[in-house]
Parts: sequence; structure tokens; C-alpha cells
Amino acid sequence: MAELAQLIDSEVFLAYATYATIVLLKMMLMSVTTAFFRITRKAFSNPEDTATFGKGENAKKYLRTDPDVERVRRGHLNDLENIAPFIGIGLLYALSGPALSTALLHFRIFVGARIFHTIAYLTPLPQPSRALSWAAGYAVTISMAYRVLRTGLYL
Amino acid sequence: MAELAQLIDSEVFLAYATYATIVLLKMMLMSVTTAFFRITRKAFSNPEDTATFGKGENAKKYLRTDPDVERVRRGHLNDLENIAPFIGIGLLYALSGPALSTALLHFRIFVGARIFHTIAYLTPLPQPSRALSWAAGYAVTISMAYRVLRTGLYL
Amino acid sequence: MAELAQLIDSEVFLAYATYATIVLLKMMLMSVTTAFFRITRKAFSNPEDTATFGKGENAKKYLRTDPDVERVRRGHLNDLENIAPFIGIGLLYALSGPALSTALLHFRIFVGARIFHTIAYLTPLPQPSRALSWAAGYAVTISMAYRVLRTGLYL
Repeated sequence: MAELAQLIDSEVFLAYATYATIVLLKMMLMSVTTAFFRITRKAFSNPEDTATFGKGENAKKYLRTDPDVERVRRGHLNDLENIAPFIGIGLLYALSGPALSTALLHFRIFVGARIFHTIAYLTPLPQPSRALSWAAGYAVTISMAYRVLRTGLYL
Repeated sequence: MAELAQLIDSEVFLAYATYATIVLLKMMLMSVTTAFFRITRKAFSNPEDTATFGKGENAKKYLRTDPDVERVRRGHLNDLENIAPFIGIGLLYALSGPALSTALLHFRIFVGARIFHTIAYLTPLPQPSRALSWAAGYAVTISMAYRVLRTGLYL
Repeated sequence: MAELAQLIDSEVFLAYATYATIVLLKMMLMSVTTAFFRITRKAFSNPEDTATFGKGENAKKYLRTDPDVERVRRGHLNDLENIAPFIGIGLLYALSGPALSTALLHFRIFVGARIFHTIAYLTPLPQPSRALSWAAGYAVTISMAYRVLRTGLYL
């Protein structure tokens, strides 16, 4: 992992920046999707969010959970659990000097798998669609972590 | 995004380091706040946490959810969902060579919006205080992502 | 925080890369652990996940929460809440030019504390094991944040 200062100017780093940004934007879309389902399903968590529906019992009935809202929230949490490691490990991987084609393969599979994971979760598609797309992203992250540790292990 | 190695020595990067650290510390405060409410409201999730209150039924009644605890936890999760993308995209944005004044504007609005979001969530302030502070932070992150992709798109 | 471009080639950065990757892999293990408990306890969140158990009421009874599954999920969320700040602040800390021995001390305590936290959560060990291991990781992150702000504050 020598000459990191040069590696940061590589095409691999540009590719990391591009795919990391795209997958983070995809994750942020889950917030808007949650809000959309909360409003259309009228299912809220906070009393202050239901104030526009009137006062007292009339508003209180909207403080409830909805299956569609909970589904999006599970997808969002799964994104956090998987995309956060990708961002951290991917940055270190991009600085470990991989071949551009190998790096692009990793980034593309990960981002594709996470986009498909969201589609499989929200449709929902029958299993094992969601399980396999989760596993693909997971395997890519492990593969990048392996290279980081093999290239620059310093305990 | 040329000459990243020089950009990392810029004032923009120092500003990113400062605001990223501040907003992560703010997020970490949510852990302490949750613990504070759990202890004062006597509402725990784990049997081993209630052992100091005695044994059997006497301790079991503290294994419950409390509206104030749940509110802080929702605020904490919202922080994770929004601050994690800011940390990742913000780092790449800082390396994309923005003008210092533009970068400071982005960082300050984001950090201010997230601090206000927490105040609006925990008080709670009437809507749309919380919604608007969330939207401000969200818009800043999108704006930074747009610059990253425009400057160094590599698919 | 001058000469960041040189600091990124330091042993401190290699050490950060190593420990950050290890602790992210540890966090990712929580996903597999959750899946393991979901399958052995037969407790799922999504109707499509229970399709292999048959149709109708027979499958529906597996749409339930299980104490062991919920325990792993709480541990996973706690990891996210604490490891995400470590990754962000730790990167900036590694670029702030700390002494190698000091940096290693920080990284080792954090990673050790988080591994012990998981053991304490999943066993479960009696309190305050889990509380103390959480506090150790928290204190390390605060200490790193303090150095980042002291070295390169730019508001």
C-alpha cells in the first residue's frame, strides 16, 4: 500500500467516488420512500406528525405501524448495515492499488446487487431473490476487505 | 478531480474534518441520551440490564418500551441514515476541489440542520420544524453528490 | 494537519486500514448471525421468507419476533451507531499525524472493546460488562475526535 498519495489520483479512486456516491444516493432514496408510504398509508410514529389530521382521537388513530412502511424501513436498515461497510472498506480498497478492471467489477456488482436488493424487497420478489442479492453485495465487500488486509496488514 | 493529493492539503479538507467530527460527536450524544432516558424512565430491552432492580417479576416490569426512549432512538436512527451519507459524500466532495466559501456553506447548513433536527425531534417542536430541518440536510447532501458526479464521473 | 499527502503513506494509516477493516468485518458478521438465529428459531419478518414452510396459516406463524433474534439485532444496531463514527473520525485521526504507538493504542482498544461488547451482548454476560465495553469504545472515539479538532479546527 505504498505511494497512497499517487493512488488517490488514479482512475480506480474516481470509480470508487462515482459508485460510492450512487449507492449512497440510492440509500437516501429510502428516506423519501418511507415518507411517501407514511403519508399515503397514514401511518406515523410521532404525535406531532398527525396534527394536520385534527386533534384527539381522530389524530391518534394514525399513530400506527403499517406493513408497507415497516418493509421500507427494514430495507433501509439493511442498506445501512451493508452500504456503510462498503463505503469504508471500498475507500481503503481503492487505495490498495487494485487493477482498474477488477475494481470496476467489484463496484459494479455491489451497486447492482444493492439496487436489485431494494427492488426484490419492495416488490416483493419471491425468495431467494433478496437473499442472493444481499449475498452478492456481502461477498464483494469481503473480497475487497481481503485485499486490503493482504496488501497492508499492520496489527 | 485532478491532483487529489494536493486537494487533501486544502482548507476545504480541514473544514470537512472539523464539521464531520462535530456532527459525528452530535450523533454519538444520542447514545448517552438514550441511556439517560432508559435509566430515568426505567425502560430497558435486556433482562441483564434490570438485574439491579431485584429479581423475578420485580425486575421484569422494567423490560418495556417508553415513548421518550423510543423517540430518542428514532432520532438516533434518523441521524445514522442521514449523517453516514454526509460523511462519505462529504469526503469525496472535499476532494473535488470546491471553492472554500461554497464548501463551508454546505458543511455549516448540514451541521446546523442536523442539530436543529435533534432539537425539533426531542422537544418536540410542532411540524414542519423537523421535516424542514431534515430536508435542509438532505438537500445539502444531494448538492454535494451532484458536484462529485459532475467533477469525476467514472462509470 | 499539514502535509496530509505524506501522512496518508504512514504506518498509522496502514494501521487504521487494518483495524477499520477488521471491525467492519466483525459488524458484518452480525448479519450472518441474525440470519442464523432467524432460521434456527424460525422467526421471520417477511411473508416471502416463510414460503418454504408451506402456505397460509402454517407459514404465518413464523412471522414473529424471537428474543434471540431481537438481541442480535440490537447488537448489530449498536455496532452501526458506534462503528460508523469510528470509521469517519478514525480516518481523520489517522491523517492528523498521531504517534504510531498512540494510534495503535486507540485502534486496539476500540476493536477489542467492540469484540468484547458483542460477546457480552450475545452470551449475555451480566452487566456492567456490556456497558463498560461500550464506554471503552466510546471514550476512544471521543479521544480521537478531540485530537482531530485540536490539530485542524477550521470553522
